[in-house]
Amino acid sequence: MFVPLTPVRFLHRAMDVFGDKVGVICGDKQFTFAEFGERCERLAAALPAHGIAAGDRVAYLSLNTHKLLEGYFGPPQAGAVLMPLNVRLSPPELIEILNHSGAKMLIFESDFAPLIPKLRESCPEIARYVGADDAPAADLTYDELIASGTPRRADIFSIDENSIAELFYTSGSTGSPKGVALSHRTLYLHGMSIAMLMRAPEIAVDLATIPMFHANGWGHAHACAMLGVPQVMVRRFDPRQVLAMIERYHATSMAVVPTMANALLNVPDASSFALDSVLDIQVGGAAASPELIERMEKLFPNAQCTAGYGLTETSPVLCYARPKKPVPRNDPHRWRRQSMTGWPVPGVELRVVDVAMQDVPRDGKTIGEIIATGDHIMDGYFRDPAGTKAAMTGPWLHTGDMAVWDEEGWVTIVDRSKEIIISGGENISSLEIEKAIYAHPAVFECAAVSAPDEKWGEVPVAVVVLKEGHRLSEQELMDFLGARLGRYKLPRRVEFRTEPLPKTGTGKVRKMVLREKYWQGHARRVHG
Amino acid sequence: MFVPLTPVRFLHRAMDVFGDKVGVICGDKQFTFAEFGERCERLAAALPAHGIAAGDRVAYLSLNTHKLLEGYFGPPQAGAVLMPLNVRLSPPELIEILNHSGAKMLIFESDFAPLIPKLRESCPEIARYVGADDAPAADLTYDELIASGTPRRADIFSIDENSIAELFYTSGSTGSPKGVALSHRTLYLHGMSIAMLMRAPEIAVDLATIPMFHANGWGHAHACAMLGVPQVMVRRFDPRQVLAMIERYHATSMAVVPTMANALLNVPDASSFALDSVLDIQVGGAAASPELIERMEKLFPNAQCTAGYGLTETSPVLCYARPKKPVPRNDPHRWRRQSMTGWPVPGVELRVVDVAMQDVPRDGKTIGEIIATGDHIMDGYFRDPAGTKAAMTGPWLHTGDMAVWDEEGWVTIVDRSKEIIISGGENISSLEIEKAIYAHPAVFECAAVSAPDEKWGEVPVAVVVLKEGHRLSEQELMDFLGARLGRYKLPRRVEFRTEPLPKTGTGKVRKMVLREKYWQGHARRVHG
Repeated sequence: MFVPLTPVRFLHRAMDVFGDKVGVICGDKQFTFAEFGERCERLAAALPAHGIAAGDRVAYLSLNTHKLLEGYFGPPQAGAVLMPLNVRLSPPELIEILNHSGAKMLIFESDFAPLIPKLRESCPEIARYVGADDAPAADLTYDELIASGTPRRADIFSIDENSIAELFYTSGSTGSPKGVALSHRTLYLHGMSIAMLMRAPEIAVDLATIPMFHANGWGHAHACAMLGVPQVMVRRFDPRQVLAMIERYHATSMAVVPTMANALLNVPDASSFALDSVLDIQVGGAAASPELIERMEKLFPNAQCTAGYGLTETSPVLCYARPKKPVPRNDPHRWRRQSMTGWPVPGVELRVVDVAMQDVPRDGKTIGEIIATGDHIMDGYFRDPAGTKAAMTGPWLHTGDMAVWDEEGWVTIVDRSKEIIISGGENISSLEIEKAIYAHPAVFECAAVSAPDEKWGEVPVAVVVLKEGHRLSEQELMDFLGARLGRYKLPRRVEFRTEPLPKTGTGKVRKMVLREKYWQGHARRVHG
Repeated sequence: MFVPLTPVRFLHRAMDVFGDKVGVICGDKQFTFAEFGERCERLAAALPAHGIAAGDRVAYLSLNTHKLLEGYFGPPQAGAVLMPLNVRLSPPELIEILNHSGAKMLIFESDFAPLIPKLRESCPEIARYVGADDAPAADLTYDELIASGTPRRADIFSIDENSIAELFYTSGSTGSPKGVALSHRTLYLHGMSIAMLMRAPEIAVDLATIPMFHANGWGHAHACAMLGVPQVMVRRFDPRQVLAMIERYHATSMAVVPTMANALLNVPDASSFALDSVLDIQVGGAAASPELIERMEKLFPNAQCTAGYGLTETSPVLCYARPKKPVPRNDPHRWRRQSMTGWPVPGVELRVVDVAMQDVPRDGKTIGEIIATGDHIMDGYFRDPAGTKAAMTGPWLHTGDMAVWDEEGWVTIVDRSKEIIISGGENISSLEIEKAIYAHPAVFECAAVSAPDEKWGEVPVAVVVLKEGHRLSEQELMDFLGARLGRYKLPRRVEFRTEPLPKTGTGKVRKMVLREKYWQGHARRVHG
């Protein structure tokens, strides 16, 4: 029988099967799944009265809170689209995304209230500003919004499973923002896949460590509702506080980017916390090293710590580096394996191919591009059919990541073909940085490349050639860029050159050559 | 992105991700997933050359073997429909089903060769008889069939996910055979759900104990391929041999009906086998008692033994009685809980309702009918739109099972409203038995009802009133029925009465009253 696939069903299941269980913990508040579900239903019911029709985008500027989590279920239940914004973007970037998406409502935490006057000026399509707290810049508060809706169970048969439920903007490789559109069906099947990877759901407690404005929160919101697993909101990632929360809530699982893992490892009195409840740590967002995995498994004595891999365009999970058969805890191959890109999760098919789309040999040596197909692949870039087309060959999405694979199908990323720098788990488009640098009148040519960094994995570095007779200091350029780019995108170093940059026959800057200088002594050209 | 949901993808995954791993063990043969997959592809490729077009039914008369398991993937890959027959049916029953389904090919083990001449005579639509072994009654052997096909990966995008992939005949409640049609999509989502319930797939070894001609093999064929879990074929359920297989293959999981569980418990030297590898035992097909669960958990010291519930019409799994939170191993509530009907598995929504389709109170006392909706519900009865319509109210399937539920949503079946007797995990229609009895010229009226039985859970009992002046002995009636009904459907007792049977105002026999006599001293009216 055909029943529409939609993440709203995960919420219904949580309410029906786990209603009395505490489902969400946020600061000093906690909600049973029944209470949480009622709040989502109120939100869904309130949206139409505030101008949100089916298909409309509801944007969020919020760190991890129960209110953002309610956004994962409320708007989709109303046929609207959840659209959380990366709070680290600069005002011009936010404005560009809000206008590109045509969002009709913005729900924001008071931390972001100072931005609102500027947005009101520049984003004519936003009709309602909702203060998540009691922000004076808002038209109404979130509490008022949900109080105005009468809870009612959504009729899932009225949902078109192929309609869009979530929209996540990523800078992509071209420098202009791209809205990754994920359908109800895609999200349901991704959630099932993530749920399948969760251990011992009857005792599980998940820490929502990854910002939920990122890549569908890695599917945790959905999988946890489905399995009745309580989620503890981590509003800001303070490593010592996270360890304290693990101890307090007996957390069993969390997802981190390598910089978060490093931060946890560097808490001076880390081992004084009770961390034996943790069974499962997923490291993703950037490459992980065997040493990192090893140190994490030593700090968390009962945890399996494994790397994972995916893109916003893939909901996001494509791979996990879970052992296919048991490996003793002290086997050094264990950490090497578990730091690899891994093998595809359920619902995903993956290949490593040459430019003719033929599989490269599974010899662990020959480099090819990772392409992927399956249920987790996005439904396209929003309002960008050309961009969508460019990303795909038939049903295969080009990840732009260069990798090797071995006889058993284990994949390891060795380089990135797209112009992306991953710093602290955030994607940064080198083209976007270059665009901002080129805007300075003194610049003749430039390139942004990645350099390895102990803390952030990678950081952007700018290589700049000035116009003849012009002068520009590093500080002047940084001040200039500061007004144009989100802080995390700013180059950490500027290298001025007087020679023209090395180029290919077709005149493209040879970034590989520029980058080489920074990566000497590193085996791979990606770093976690 | 839309990718068709089909169990064929489970096979592709097994081949791609677990290719070198032993996937199927059958007697003294074993196959890696790559080898197994290649055989399925050969089968799929060979079918068209032997007259099987898309949508055609391929019937099987086979116990559990790797060849029947190949049938779970080969025909669907060719767009055809897998249709395993219950080998316990009588020749007239088999003929009725083969003709109702219009099966074009029959693949049979040599045990069933004596039936073939009769089928050739009576089933004009069957164009090819394939001997799974070297049966002389066949047109060709299975080895010849698959040798004639060149292995080729199916293009899953050519598969309509809503087309039928499997057809399982059940006697249903009306006495005429009903073909439960399951689509590719339904089977995929059911397989995902079953996979989610499997523990520790990296060490799992599954014993295929349940006849795979039953109810989609309870989803094990699909879930095991998906997770790369080896399946050990149990051709006939010999309890001592099953214990030996557990020891030999370090089996971790199996599904059994209560009579199988009892048989395992009654093996005199059961505890002399190494049974500590077993982690998960699912008991379904009929109601289980707390005592049975307790004894199983004591025989298998590391296993969680839980009841489950479903119908052929639901792919089949609807519920599992898994603890929602950990329960100590010696807590007596553990066994009581784990013997309950349970709570819905992922993808299923379930209610206990009164005749007006309103939820009955969740008080553990008020009886209502279980209705279910979700991804696991059949796509309908084959060639029987009226039957399909009668089984449904909107998206809700009527199970005919009467149950209570409690505050936490745990369901317990207490009676059956449909005319079904479950004996040794086999559904028997009381109407079908009655039809056969009525065929005897001496019978005035009759009813078939269930009686509890230590070994089989329930057995059918016939209550018969003869026409005036007629005589008929129990033995004569049994001989008469023996030619008409599968052996397991034969009444275990015949009670002759001289008074007319008790009736309702509309003239329906009050079976509840008749049945009561046999069930005195039992708390429920179902028995495992």
